[in-house]
Amino acid sequence: MRRVHNFSAGPAALPEPVLRQAAEEMLDWHGSGMSVMEMSHRGKHFMAIAEEAETLLRELLAVPANYKILFMQGGAIAENAIVPMNMLRGHAGADYVDTGEWSRRSIAEARRYGQVNVVASNAEGGSVAIPARDSWKLDPNAAYVHICTNETIGGVQYHWTPDVGSVPLVADMSSDILSRPIDVSRYGLIYAGAQKNIGPSGLTIVIVREDLLGGALPCTPTAFDYQVVAEHGSMYNTPPTYAIYIAGLVFNWLKARGGLAAMAEHNRVKAALLYDFLDSTSFYSSPIARDCRSWMNVPFRLHDSALDAAFLKGADERGLVQLKGHRIVGGMRASIYNAMPIEGVQALVAYMKEFEAAHG
Amino acid sequence: MRRVHNFSAGPAALPEPVLRQAAEEMLDWHGSGMSVMEMSHRGKHFMAIAEEAETLLRELLAVPANYKILFMQGGAIAENAIVPMNMLRGHAGADYVDTGEWSRRSIAEARRYGQVNVVASNAEGGSVAIPARDSWKLDPNAAYVHICTNETIGGVQYHWTPDVGSVPLVADMSSDILSRPIDVSRYGLIYAGAQKNIGPSGLTIVIVREDLLGGALPCTPTAFDYQVVAEHGSMYNTPPTYAIYIAGLVFNWLKARGGLAAMAEHNRVKAALLYDFLDSTSFYSSPIARDCRSWMNVPFRLHDSALDAAFLKGADERGLVQLKGHRIVGGMRASIYNAMPIEGVQALVAYMKEFEAAHG
Repeated sequence: MRRVHNFSAGPAALPEPVLRQAAEEMLDWHGSGMSVMEMSHRGKHFMAIAEEAETLLRELLAVPANYKILFMQGGAIAENAIVPMNMLRGHAGADYVDTGEWSRRSIAEARRYGQVNVVASNAEGGSVAIPARDSWKLDPNAAYVHICTNETIGGVQYHWTPDVGSVPLVADMSSDILSRPIDVSRYGLIYAGAQKNIGPSGLTIVIVREDLLGGALPCTPTAFDYQVVAEHGSMYNTPPTYAIYIAGLVFNWLKARGGLAAMAEHNRVKAALLYDFLDSTSFYSSPIARDCRSWMNVPFRLHDSALDAAFLKGADERGLVQLKGHRIVGGMRASIYNAMPIEGVQALVAYMKEFEAAHG
Repeated sequence: MRRVHNFSAGPAALPEPVLRQAAEEMLDWHGSGMSVMEMSHRGKHFMAIAEEAETLLRELLAVPANYKILFMQGGAIAENAIVPMNMLRGHAGADYVDTGEWSRRSIAEARRYGQVNVVASNAEGGSVAIPARDSWKLDPNAAYVHICTNETIGGVQYHWTPDVGSVPLVADMSSDILSRPIDVSRYGLIYAGAQKNIGPSGLTIVIVREDLLGGALPCTPTAFDYQVVAEHGSMYNTPPTYAIYIAGLVFNWLKARGGLAAMAEHNRVKAALLYDFLDSTSFYSSPIARDCRSWMNVPFRLHDSALDAAFLKGADERGLVQLKGHRIVGGMRASIYNAMPIEGVQALVAYMKEFEAAHG
């Protein structure tokens, strides 16, 4: 068996112990005589699995009792519609902060359901950064304020939680949920596709304050009405059972590793290792403002893009895979989510030094 | 390791060779150094997996070239909204045939998007049957005619394909797709949740005639607009990659078993074994009209429901699990999808005889 260091932006690397356990339990989960994939979602075995997953997630993120956790489908791209459908609640529109490609996709989709006020944007100008809070032109009557806490493509991340007063803060945390502790009570709603820090694609996590449930637009498919999903314990439609099981194994792994405080330190150290190296050489560079560099997705460039193909080929030969940058920004991107061990980043930096020595 | 005979209605039993292969490949798919769960959906490995799954499905069902196959999310319950959102295409409404609980859920959801004309129903009257075609009061201006080819709860199944003229026939085939050959060209659209005959829950298959794409209602979430999904090769949002991989393994297993003609014979024989036994005794009974008894889901009753609990307990002890009927109809239900071997049905009938001898 061979295992690579997988820098994919998502679906992304999973903890190896999780995969080992999943393989071992594939044909017979805990003596049930069934794979988790084969279990009725309403049977006692799967009900226990789903309940444990929710309990662990609640514990890891310290989710307050007045928040519901929903297991849904469709990923963040479906949520771009499902959020305004559920969250406009009679308001004319919502405020969105534009910090990159994922924000802009959320904005474009939300415009189909209500007025969208882009209160701040980093689309213009040179450096790639998060617009400072005092530049945001918020509407006190907005249904909510939407942010993307980590831009997977651009590589910018909020390292602070915006104060938006009494208007609910809605966050797409697809690519940094569970990477560090957060104060859930500062948010009205958090959503995240699973395929970065949680588990397999096809599962979406929604964490929503109870008083925000209800009043979805009449055209909302019932399966995507947060209130209905909450009332049915995420079993209004058949949930993605195997993805929930894997997510539960990941949550267990996170807990055993010391929870999100330990994970934040792990991620801070990995990111610092890579950014410090990028700053130490002119052969490579990071285009991101220092105070909002992502701990999860590190885009970087070679000083000469003619070397890109050779760089990727050499990396691949060393088992350092999926480093090609997103087509929108080009260059390279190292995604170093929770499951990426420090050894993976060390191996990447060692290779980058080696490549620089050979081509510098 | 223990394996039971799992009569769950869904998520349901999967072929054991599929589970074995999935376990073996969990940490390293074909020397890639990655689990399928960890692969970028746009990388060469997963693209090959998705392409093979689609090719096999197209081959198994003999899908004509002018039909698109879409891999979506949300299951049939989400499709209950997504179908009218996409398929009304400027028409005022659609025709629905009511053959049971799943039809009625489709009808209730479709009413939120347009006029629904229930053209025939088995909700009234004694026997549980499919209304004869000549009783259907079709509207020639309907956007489509909707049927559910197999009612998982009621246990009725179409053993014929309705002729509805030039109006597109739309079928929920969640619980009998791939159980026998069908003539796809008779349908405008077929949809199916994966969790019975295809693979894990969280994956929905849509097969749609190309000329029906386009013109979705303005409120349709872009991720659920069939035309957008088709144009992006089911990758507008991140697809449920692991579920697609497992589905591909199931398709391979079906092909190796001789395809759908062989599968139909396998299912016919299993169903006949169980129904013939039910008809041979007054201790058990089937409430379903003979010409529309489902090959997939066999509801049956004990002559004395006071014995139900003892029956289920004894079954469980013999590794015959998930036989309890749906709460709406009570009694028992044996779901005997493709992956249920003949030995499972033989074991069930042997136990039923044994139980009758002890309590008759």
